Amino acid sequence: MNRRDALEVLRGSVAELEPGHVWLAGAGPGDPGLVTLDALAGLAQADVVVHDALVDPRVLALAGPHAQLEFSGKRGGKPSAAQEDISKRLVDLAKQGKRVLRLKGGDPCVFGRGAEEAMALAMAGVPFRLIPGVTAGLGALAAAAIPATVRGINRAIIFAAGHGAAGSAVADSEWEALARTAQPIVIYMAMHNLARIVDALRRGGLQPATPVAVIAAATTATERILVSTLKRVVAEVRAQGLEPPAIIAVGEIVQFRAKLLDAVAAAGSAVR
Amino acid sequence: MNRRDALEVLRGSVAELEPGHVWLAGAGPGDPGLVTLDALAGLAQADVVVHDALVDPRVLALAGPHAQLEFSGKRGGKPSAAQEDISKRLVDLAKQGKRVLRLKGGDPCVFGRGAEEAMALAMAGVPFRLIPGVTAGLGALAAAAIPATVRGINRAIIFAAGHGAAGSAVADSEWEALARTAQPIVIYMAMHNLARIVDALRRGGLQPATPVAVIAAATTATERILVSTLKRVVAEVRAQGLEPPAIIAVGEIVQFRAKLLDAVAAAGSAVR
Repeated sequence: MNRRDALEVLRGSVAELEPGHVWLAGAGPGDPGLVTLDALAGLAQADVVVHDALVDPRVLALAGPHAQLEFSGKRGGKPSAAQEDISKRLVDLAKQGKRVLRLKGGDPCVFGRGAEEAMALAMAGVPFRLIPGVTAGLGALAAAAIPATVRGINRAIIFAAGHGAAGSAVADSEWEALARTAQPIVIYMAMHNLARIVDALRRGGLQPATPVAVIAAATTATERILVSTLKRVVAEVRAQGLEPPAIIAVGEIVQFRAKLLDAVAAAGSAVR
Repeated sequence: MNRRDALEVLRGSVAELEPGHVWLAGAGPGDPGLVTLDALAGLAQADVVVHDALVDPRVLALAGPHAQLEFSGKRGGKPSAAQEDISKRLVDLAKQGKRVLRLKGGDPCVFGRGAEEAMALAMAGVPFRLIPGVTAGLGALAAAAIPATVRGINRAIIFAAGHGAAGSAVADSEWEALARTAQPIVIYMAMHNLARIVDALRRGGLQPATPVAVIAAATTATERILVSTLKRVVAEVRAQGLEPPAIIAVGEIVQFRAKLLDAVAAAGSAVR
């Protein structure tokens, strides 16, 4: 029994990735247990899996035995040109009649350029499908036992990008406006500009003691979690040598982690 | 071959839901293709699946043949008391040695009271695990071909609850602060207070022509999508008889849908 047959056992039926089609799918934060059934169906059926650097090797290992794995992340240099190259590659593969899975870490449309690739496929007449995933921010929060929302604390949550293509990161004035909402902020790609972001959030009114969690490589073998404050986080990230990829959560929700772990310790139960 | 064996084929190994343990998992927005492998493993192994009203019947159909399905949603009346009852029920089932899957629509910790249930389990000494899911907001956006982020439009996105337990919905002044960020806002449970939310967002500076999408019953058989503006959305929701559950997206990202569908129509490709 191959993976595709197994999927049919599981679901009764499975969506078909047809030749000449592209699925733009999210792979989740890293843990293969957080891959969706549709992304798995894509992995099992694809002739080519075009993936970025944030897709975990354990997820790629779920690809069918004949699938060709193609790395297509962007690394420094010329992001715009590289993005055009990736879109063109997806179109070319589809026009060759391949079954193409374009797999991105997290959700393909949350800071992932899924929109641009979808538009390129649409304009080229390539049939495609958008498959959402567990976004890295929510995966990281769950891994750190920090709920996105806690009754009595927040009824809204903000996801923001700390870094991106030239001119596309959140500007200092925008960080200040986000801070003034007093809602928790989950920051993707925050490490590169962390000191600057912290300064802008403080100018927006967040107190130095505001709790901050840094969750590096969430749900992977190298996951590391640091709990700090706005005042201390830049120095502590440096002191502990934490590196990207990381998700940074700012706000009172972070304190739930300690409360939950204390309750677990007191009662002798276990969180996994 | 049963579902659990199938999972082992798929993953090589599968996390084990042990007797007396509870998994707090997200079921995604509705489509069973958006269930994660870990949630599926929980469904396959659970003795009892305690689910809310937002979990799609097609997802519940993935439960093992001997699993007991228990509805435990909250319906009007006394939300706090009911929440305590649900937490107590989870603890009782675990103490009886059951393998318990607590399954919630979307992600368990995004406006889903996952935090409270986790705390109740921790305090009772019940071992548990938090399993994130595809949150309803991202599932609905993808279903409507609206990317959460579009380069050149936004590098942040806000998720907010329009309705909730007494005193826990976003207040008018908070909606105004969210509006002032000029970032797109994805509103969960927005239908009940829609007119009031629209008024507060306009006081916060959003223009009457700001694009709005209403995505009802996303990724289910009864899905309906309305594209409107802040000025017209209240009247149009009423005229078209749209009902909860619905996700409402406010902001320029909504316009991407028309652009993408126009490109598809012009090129003769197909979005699914």
